[in-house]
Amino acid sequence: MNDRFTKTPEPPYYAVIFTNQLSENDGGYETMGNKMFEMALDQPGCLGAESTRDSSGLGITVSYWKDEAALSEWKANAKHLVAQNMGIEQWYAHYELRVAKVERAYNGPTGRSVK
Amino acid sequence: MNDRFTKTPEPPYYAVIFTNQLSENDGGYETMGNKMFEMALDQPGCLGAESTRDSSGLGITVSYWKDEAALSEWKANAKHLVAQNMGIEQWYAHYELRVAKVERAYNGPTGRSVK
Repeated sequence: MNDRFTKTPEPPYYAVIFTNQLSENDGGYETMGNKMFEMALDQPGCLGAESTRDSSGLGITVSYWKDEAALSEWKANAKHLVAQNMGIEQWYAHYELRVAKVERAYNGPTGRSVK
Repeated sequence: MNDRFTKTPEPPYYAVIFTNQLSENDGGYETMGNKMFEMALDQPGCLGAESTRDSSGLGITVSYWKDEAALSEWKANAKHLVAQNMGIEQWYAHYELRVAKVERAYNGPTGRSVK
C-alpha cells in the first residue's frame, strides 16, 4: 500500500466520484487542480482522496468524507474557488460528479477483508 | 462527452470503486483485466464503467450497477473467473474496493445538473 491510497475508516462514509476529461485547451489547469486537491485534503472531515489520469487526459478522482456536513462545507468552498478562477468550462471537455455513501469496503490482494 | 463516460440513470444506483496499483510483475494482467471489464459490462444490471490508469500503474475503475442484486450476481461470477486464473495476488501490489450507493449526480462543465 502506498500513499496514493486512502486509509478509510469503517463504513459508512461518503465518496465523491469525479470522472473528467481534460480539454485540449487546459492552460492553468494543473495549478488549479492541485490547489483544489490540497484544499480538499485540508478540509475538516476529509478522509483523503485517490486520483489518477491517463495520457489521453481522462482522470478519476475519488475523495472520501466523514459525513454529509463535511461535504456541504467543501462544496461551498470549492464553488468560491471556482468562481474566482472561471476556468472550469475551459479545462474540462466533460465531467461526471457523483456523490455516494460507501456501505462496504475491502482491500487486498490477499483477501484481507476490512469489513 | 465521449464513450469513456457512463450515462447513468437517476440515482439511486450502486457504484463499485476499485482503486489498484499494478505490481511490476503484471504479466497476463491486461488480458484478464480486459476480460473482467467486458464481463462486467455484459452482466445484467450493469449500467457501465469508467476506467483510467496512469503511467505509474495506479488505476481507478468505477463500475455502476442498477441494484444490489445485480452486484451480487457479478460478485459470484467475478470470483469464479479469478479462481480460474489465480493471478490476482501477483498482479496487484495493493487494491481498495468500495461499494457505495450513489445518491446524487451532476455533470458539466456548463453547470448542467442532472438531478
